[in-house]
Amino acid sequence: MPTAPRVDLRAYDQLRPLRLEADFQPTAEGSVLIQLGATRVLCAATLEETVPGFLRGQGRGWVTAEYAMLPRATLSRTPREVVKGRPSGRTMEIQRLVGRALRSVVDLAALGERTLTLDCDVLQADGGTRTASITGAFVAMAMAMQRLVAARTLSRLPLRNYLAAVSVGIIAGQPALDLNYTEDSHAAVDMNLAMTGDGRYVEVQATAESEPFSDAEAAEMNRLGRLGIAQLMAAQHEMLQLPLPRL
Amino acid sequence: MPTAPRVDLRAYDQLRPLRLEADFQPTAEGSVLIQLGATRVLCAATLEETVPGFLRGQGRGWVTAEYAMLPRATLSRTPREVVKGRPSGRTMEIQRLVGRALRSVVDLAALGERTLTLDCDVLQADGGTRTASITGAFVAMAMAMQRLVAARTLSRLPLRNYLAAVSVGIIAGQPALDLNYTEDSHAAVDMNLAMTGDGRYVEVQATAESEPFSDAEAAEMNRLGRLGIAQLMAAQHEMLQLPLPRL
Amino acid sequence: MPTAPRVDLRAYDQLRPLRLEADFQPTAEGSVLIQLGATRVLCAATLEETVPGFLRGQGRGWVTAEYAMLPRATLSRTPREVVKGRPSGRTMEIQRLVGRALRSVVDLAALGERTLTLDCDVLQADGGTRTASITGAFVAMAMAMQRLVAARTLSRLPLRNYLAAVSVGIIAGQPALDLNYTEDSHAAVDMNLAMTGDGRYVEVQATAESEPFSDAEAAEMNRLGRLGIAQLMAAQHEMLQLPLPRL
Amino acid sequence: MPTAPRVDLRAYDQLRPLRLEADFQPTAEGSVLIQLGATRVLCAATLEETVPGFLRGQGRGWVTAEYAMLPRATLSRTPREVVKGRPSGRTMEIQRLVGRALRSVVDLAALGERTLTLDCDVLQADGGTRTASITGAFVAMAMAMQRLVAARTLSRLPLRNYLAAVSVGIIAGQPALDLNYTEDSHAAVDMNLAMTGDGRYVEVQATAESEPFSDAEAAEMNRLGRLGIAQLMAAQHEMLQLPLPRL
Amino acid sequence: MPTAPRVDLRAYDQLRPLRLEADFQPTAEGSVLIQLGATRVLCAATLEETVPGFLRGQGRGWVTAEYAMLPRATLSRTPREVVKGRPSGRTMEIQRLVGRALRSVVDLAALGERTLTLDCDVLQADGGTRTASITGAFVAMAMAMQRLVAARTLSRLPLRNYLAAVSVGIIAGQPALDLNYTEDSHAAVDMNLAMTGDGRYVEVQATAESEPFSDAEAAEMNRLGRLGIAQLMAAQHEMLQLPLPRL
Amino acid sequence: MPTAPRVDLRAYDQLRPLRLEADFQPTAEGSVLIQLGATRVLCAATLEETVPGFLRGQGRGWVTAEYAMLPRATLSRTPREVVKGRPSGRTMEIQRLVGRALRSVVDLAALGERTLTLDCDVLQADGGTRTASITGAFVAMAMAMQRLVAARTLSRLPLRNYLAAVSVGIIAGQPALDLNYTEDSHAAVDMNLAMTGDGRYVEVQATAESEPFSDAEAAEMNRLGRLGIAQLMAAQHEMLQLPLPRL
Repeated sequence: MPTAPRVDLRAYDQLRPLRLEADFQPTAEGSVLIQLGATRVLCAATLEETVPGFLRGQGRGWVTAEYAMLPRATLSRTPREVVKGRPSGRTMEIQRLVGRALRSVVDLAALGERTLTLDCDVLQADGGTRTASITGAFVAMAMAMQRLVAARTLSRLPLRNYLAAVSVGIIAGQPALDLNYTEDSHAAVDMNLAMTGDGRYVEVQATAESEPFSDAEAAEMNRLGRLGIAQLMAAQHEMLQLPLPRL
Repeated sequence: MPTAPRVDLRAYDQLRPLRLEADFQPTAEGSVLIQLGATRVLCAATLEETVPGFLRGQGRGWVTAEYAMLPRATLSRTPREVVKGRPSGRTMEIQRLVGRALRSVVDLAALGERTLTLDCDVLQADGGTRTASITGAFVAMAMAMQRLVAARTLSRLPLRNYLAAVSVGIIAGQPALDLNYTEDSHAAVDMNLAMTGDGRYVEVQATAESEPFSDAEAAEMNRLGRLGIAQLMAAQHEMLQLPLPRL
Repeated sequence: MPTAPRVDLRAYDQLRPLRLEADFQPTAEGSVLIQLGATRVLCAATLEETVPGFLRGQGRGWVTAEYAMLPRATLSRTPREVVKGRPSGRTMEIQRLVGRALRSVVDLAALGERTLTLDCDVLQADGGTRTASITGAFVAMAMAMQRLVAARTLSRLPLRNYLAAVSVGIIAGQPALDLNYTEDSHAAVDMNLAMTGDGRYVEVQATAESEPFSDAEAAEMNRLGRLGIAQLMAAQHEMLQLPLPRL
Repeated sequence: MPTAPRVDLRAYDQLRPLRLEADFQPTAEGSVLIQLGATRVLCAATLEETVPGFLRGQGRGWVTAEYAMLPRATLSRTPREVVKGRPSGRTMEIQRLVGRALRSVVDLAALGERTLTLDCDVLQADGGTRTASITGAFVAMAMAMQRLVAARTLSRLPLRNYLAAVSVGIIAGQPALDLNYTEDSHAAVDMNLAMTGDGRYVEVQATAESEPFSDAEAAEMNRLGRLGIAQLMAAQHEMLQLPLPRL
Repeated sequence: MPTAPRVDLRAYDQLRPLRLEADFQPTAEGSVLIQLGATRVLCAATLEETVPGFLRGQGRGWVTAEYAMLPRATLSRTPREVVKGRPSGRTMEIQRLVGRALRSVVDLAALGERTLTLDCDVLQADGGTRTASITGAFVAMAMAMQRLVAARTLSRLPLRNYLAAVSVGIIAGQPALDLNYTEDSHAAVDMNLAMTGDGRYVEVQATAESEPFSDAEAAEMNRLGRLGIAQLMAAQHEMLQLPLPRL
Repeated sequence: MPTAPRVDLRAYDQLRPLRLEADFQPTAEGSVLIQLGATRVLCAATLEETVPGFLRGQGRGWVTAEYAMLPRATLSRTPREVVKGRPSGRTMEIQRLVGRALRSVVDLAALGERTLTLDCDVLQADGGTRTASITGAFVAMAMAMQRLVAARTLSRLPLRNYLAAVSVGIIAGQPALDLNYTEDSHAAVDMNLAMTGDGRYVEVQATAESEPFSDAEAAEMNRLGRLGIAQLMAAQHEMLQLPLPRL
């Protein structure tokens, strides 16, 4: 049985059009506007010469992330979280995910007692904002690190690997790469995959709300995810030219 | 005694370069990115078919505004207000100012029982963000209204006047138009002026923290403010072509 | 066309009856109950031998203000802000205004590394509570300073000028001094004016919600405001006898 | 062994000077300023034509209380609770106590589906503010009820008894009536007693932090408390002239 | 007139079946699960080598308590307090009561600059949870202290007395010991009594919401309370074998 | 190279001792205390005859979960989240995970417009509390459903499958089943696996903070997880005897 066409006529293994625009916030240590189809996330890196209390005096650094959406990033307006007085569970989950993923490719000892904060602010949301945040935040972070090396603040780049992330899902029984919002709303399974340039996994988060998935489906989602991540890393490399492994 | 040159070499009665980019958030009813020098504010209009409780059943609409800054809109990172759990006093003051100014030129009866929310999110902050928010939010609001008229939701444009705002200040004894952040930090007086197209005042907020100001200084600040507002309205008119009075 | 009489039969350029009652809270460093018609605000000064973090080590002091209303200060009961968990935008705006105005006449270097907190608690609200807070808080602050000089904690009075504030408005097209609550609810324009004893402006806040105002109206409101402030300063002087300029 | 004199030379069974000032907040349905020595509490009654959800549709009313202190009611300034975002445990405990005590003498069915809120705001705190709140709030509540009867909103007074409260304590081994702040800070036992006009108990709260107390001490504290409450009810009766039993 | 039987057929002076289960949370310094009929409270002691700021440097320790209920400790589910963002007034009142009662029998100087925190978590609530918390927390605290003495952290047991608490009430005119939830809901008077092993009072809290109570009723409630506390202390002693006075 | 023994001498593919104790909170619709080694979680099901707003009127039910830890569930005391005023990011993430997993095996249409809330309260935490919460909450939920069927509230069991979850990790390069707290603290990879009785995946969450993992490692963790889940389902089945597929 032939599969139905996707809403935007992409192939099931095709990424949405990708664009990285560097230095969107020129006063930040590094910043990039990542666009993946209609999804746009502004990622900015801030360096501070301090670390959280639990790390003080150990000579190691820290990388953390924050995430938010502008109210009209969405089709109907989403109220600001400050009105409720606290970040939602979804926001906290994403912030923890992005920070964890970034730390997995950073040499925290080589960073020294410094904190890099990556702000990921969604200007337009059309699905995949958390994975776009990881992919974009990696670029903003690497740019900030390159400048710290150029300024001799750091003697070498405290990075071990490229890092990118993508979403995959199962729509009407068919595994598909890089879901947009419409597809995501109808997906039986939603999977987020973050991988390093040497082909290892940093995060696998696969969730079935309406329908559990089989081993075979897991394998196909995995194959599609690697395909997409390889293309995202190619775009990262074009901008950054880092001497690091990539898919 | 000749006055010292301004940090960016502008004349004391000169606005910073201005640019309005329409439909920056295409899913909003109206949106504009206003740039005034290095200050950039994204303004988006949302229409809801409801009004706050105190207005229900009166056949009149409401216009309100919200304001926030991205963390790296500023030279050093500003923590998100959601972390503290509440908008700062400064944020609340600005939101109330922007909403009040917009309502002064709207025919709330002609709007009907609807609420327009204007989100003003500062992407880059270099002084004058609250006045840029008023000037930009007017454009986003007017665009949303034009579409409501085109869609026959409204029978006529519920607007009475153009509206724009600008900051003026006194730096080293010299009144100056449209202060940037560096100037603002050293100004003895900070004034925000919002005016309608027919030359009347909507808001005058003049504050002297380090040095009170005289009648003569007030008059000169007023003259500079009108000059700047006339130019801002010319740019608004170029984009909107509204059949309304302007300076 | 003759203007209509005011609701309380005052002339349009007439203040409400004024009374200052010193030491209403005798344990405070200075305190005064200011009554302006039915509006009553209790102002109390507290001295602390510390300054906020951003001022530490600079040898300069700080002046700040807090504002609140008792629940039955108003005609119908107003819920306490602690129930909502945060001060309202209005409260924050007023607190910032009062603090800013007070600082403009204080010699913060002569105060030394100390903080004066002025608590303004509204016992009865009938319009003009924010300007009454400024006028009353100046008295409580000056009394506290006089005692610090008498106790030789300070070598001289760290004050440069008298300070008072008043509200003005436009009711049914007629500019009027010192609006009570009923008038304020119907005013097209609401203006708060804070001035120093040498006739200069500290704050001008003029807001038109229902109807913008012209240059001529601004000038007349200004004239009425000066008239009222001169009378308020006369009453302050009668109580304080400070060797400072006053209108 | 003769007992030491009290700090203010009162006898151990003597109340502080008492004064009740009616209608301190004239816009309230009933209000009184109660002064007991240097302790001053402003009590105001508000009537609302509604009841909390759990009582709706049962034809019965509700009485509740709120309590707060002005920042400079105390010798050194106490920060406002709104700054912390929530009422303290002490505030909540007092509010619940005052509300419970008032309800014990009210005929809630005769009140009808209405809520009386009693605001108790401490203008000056010198010990015994919670018992002064009960005694004063009873007066404000009864005045409001008398007016409702006069206005024929109620057909009869929904009150069963006078109500007053007083504090007693043990200082240096000696039971004493109506402790002021200095005494309270050194007391081994602190007891609050609320009684009805017919001599029955509404609340007995006796707390020993530094030293538990014996049956004999309990009995003597009880005797002193009744003495004090009889005098408080005499003053209430002088103002209210209610046809109700009193000690 | 013979009194009606109690809902669970107990005599009016009879406690519910009591059971103490030690070390329910084995990683705590001391812990006990106290069961009184269907009421079950888990009490755990934590020792920290620090004291609150107001006690620092005085060589004295501190004892404090926290209290909470699991959502399904109650017949219908009670929402978690974290959802509302703050402990309820009831929770704060109980926490303060338990902490105060415990401190009254502790020699804080002998404890040294340490804090003992007693967590009282209600697993099943059938009336009397606050008094069961006091009785159980005393056991957990004493066990922790015995271990500190065994470990030579303390040279002697910093305890002066046994401590236990019980509830008493008046149901349909009849004083009764140890009310369960059904009885408590219908009681005219609710009394909590905490006493030391030498027969003195630590806390007496008697509250009449529906009907004030007389001297004779107070005396009978007192007699029943002592009876119950003697039995609770016998059970504590069986487990702890402390060389201290008990009822 | 032979692998090092585990801290508790288990085999790498061995679960900790498991015990399920039914009806630990007898007033709940269903409840179970699940013990997995030293980890103990109390799971209780509450049925309410209502659904959240977004589901109203659709004839479908909802299943949700809440999670918390008692303060002394941990080796050193963990402060209550209510003190901070909000659930932590970790708590929210776990609550969402447990709720999602449970919903994946429930026939929400067959449940009708009802909400089942599963409270998971950790009495003792020694690793794996979130997966134990899923396994235990399934039992409590199924027991509640069986009673609803027995009571004819439901005509059939609204369940499609067994559900259980387990943690797996990589310690010193060696994949291991069911990590305890000590192992979890040193694991390079932490994976949580939730599966249905028919062998499909509901949740896969694999996170590498210190070291990314390969395809081969993922496969081995997956194999161990299935092994453990089969044993957990056997224990669930022994208690519930549901006519549903299981591993």
